[in-house]
Amino acid sequence: MNSHIAVDIGGTQLRAAAFSEDSSKPARVIRIPTRDESSSPLERLQALIQQIWPTDQPVAGIAVATPGPTDPYRGIVVEAPNIPGWVDLPLRSHLEEHFQVPVAVGNDANLAALGEWKFGAGIGHAHMIYVTISTGIGGGIIIDNRLLLGAQGLAGEIGHVTVIPDGPPCGCGGYGHLEALASGTAITRWVKEQLQNGIQSSLENVKPLNAKAVSEAAQKGDWLGIAALSRAANYVGIALANLLHIFNPTAIIIGGGVSRSGPLLLTPMFSTMQSHVMNPRYLENLVLQEAKFGDDAGLMGALALARTSFPGQPR
Amino acid sequence: MNSHIAVDIGGTQLRAAAFSEDSSKPARVIRIPTRDESSSPLERLQALIQQIWPTDQPVAGIAVATPGPTDPYRGIVVEAPNIPGWVDLPLRSHLEEHFQVPVAVGNDANLAALGEWKFGAGIGHAHMIYVTISTGIGGGIIIDNRLLLGAQGLAGEIGHVTVIPDGPPCGCGGYGHLEALASGTAITRWVKEQLQNGIQSSLENVKPLNAKAVSEAAQKGDWLGIAALSRAANYVGIALANLLHIFNPTAIIIGGGVSRSGPLLLTPMFSTMQSHVMNPRYLENLVLQEAKFGDDAGLMGALALARTSFPGQPR
Repeated sequence: MNSHIAVDIGGTQLRAAAFSEDSSKPARVIRIPTRDESSSPLERLQALIQQIWPTDQPVAGIAVATPGPTDPYRGIVVEAPNIPGWVDLPLRSHLEEHFQVPVAVGNDANLAALGEWKFGAGIGHAHMIYVTISTGIGGGIIIDNRLLLGAQGLAGEIGHVTVIPDGPPCGCGGYGHLEALASGTAITRWVKEQLQNGIQSSLENVKPLNAKAVSEAAQKGDWLGIAALSRAANYVGIALANLLHIFNPTAIIIGGGVSRSGPLLLTPMFSTMQSHVMNPRYLENLVLQEAKFGDDAGLMGALALARTSFPGQPR
Repeated sequence: MNSHIAVDIGGTQLRAAAFSEDSSKPARVIRIPTRDESSSPLERLQALIQQIWPTDQPVAGIAVATPGPTDPYRGIVVEAPNIPGWVDLPLRSHLEEHFQVPVAVGNDANLAALGEWKFGAGIGHAHMIYVTISTGIGGGIIIDNRLLLGAQGLAGEIGHVTVIPDGPPCGCGGYGHLEALASGTAITRWVKEQLQNGIQSSLENVKPLNAKAVSEAAQKGDWLGIAALSRAANYVGIALANLLHIFNPTAIIIGGGVSRSGPLLLTPMFSTMQSHVMNPRYLENLVLQEAKFGDDAGLMGALALARTSFPGQPR
């Protein structure tokens, strides 16, 4: 029996786990902060993998989920937000040299889609769209049981489709992108604007005022919170209707912290999507539901990539 | 040596051609009107295929490009605009029973994409987007050298993505869809509005005033014509930038009558697309160019489908 090692690189946290071939529960998981004073993120990553390295089984391969644009064909991290210096970093070859096992890398949102399809809410759906809504908005698309990568591996950037051409500025430099309208950051910004305009809400004195606080207030019936989620859901619903027309999937899976708002987000999202679909056939047999994996989405995605890339031949 | 028969069903014209396996030039092509008083469109279609049936080679299969939504898995025409009565028509089984050879069907815009990829402007591009701009706007997408179909075969409806959420009504019942903003119909409607508002133009007394006339006036330097094409190109450019973020292709091929406006359309289209792309990497090695096939796009697409579906075993 072999093991696979799955790694998720976040801007604030590195996590790694070893999985025996016969289980999707990790034999061992360790989480550490991505940055500290004494060592580089790459050194910390290597030390972390060393720590969870199984002693009882050979390792068939390592897969790594990376934040930001990544070239999965060449194993290069194009850019990693919040990790200074990781520009065009040949992560695969670094790790292969160090550990002497094959390594695969992929963008974390793309891999989260793969993880939901293989182990989570998307099981059995050959055509599936995954959207993750947290600080930013990302996505991944499964077509004919395969992850859509594109020519350079940059496909699936659902957060950067234009929803309102003259809309608010996006972190990427664009305008009116889905991420600029419906991410946790955008939700919080809009609530702050409403409060500054004198709208009454229980959120007035909440600190820190973030998407989680907005969601919690909404759950308790705060109208501003409810309106904020509904507004974001509306923009996501428009984008999803477009994706239905383009991909004709049978499942849409919503992940990321904001998705935990549940029906307050998903109900208006479905409603808008439905009203924007050109033909009811696109809704036949379609499921729209919350992702199964929360903080472990990247890790489970990396496991899915490892098992797909390195089906366990003994070394 | 085998033959394949390719058929393109249009709202106004049926065309069919027989192709010998060793050539992409048809041995014989016939075009007839889709409708007349004496026979049904299905009878006319069958008679047409009979007429071009090769006498010197066995037929390995027939492929048919159909207008409107089509289920390629079950061979059913869901709806054919301009052909009354063609709703959920099992075209494949009708033709297979009649001709006793295997039959494949597909949406004409999807197949036009396949045709450009196999024989035309998209040769060699594993990841390609095809957009056809004529009376309406359609599309087809090639991923990893395969045509994107989706769960029910309804994928690729690029014309019905929302570009301006509160924009003008679309023929499909939606609002602000690309087709409602940038199709030949939309271009003509906008020019008429400008003329009614008293804008001076050589188009004032042109009859019939259609997209072709607008394009011709633009070629001669008419500012209203140039503005109309540039405006449509701008909307298409926004949609294309979204598709780059979603698919990361290496080629975008623009077909349909309106594409024959050439640089007056393609230059502003590329410029808008470029300004809406989040990262210049999406533009690396990307080509944006006119389709190779004009009126024969559907026919060449049907040929591509026939050859892919029925690689010539002798009967």
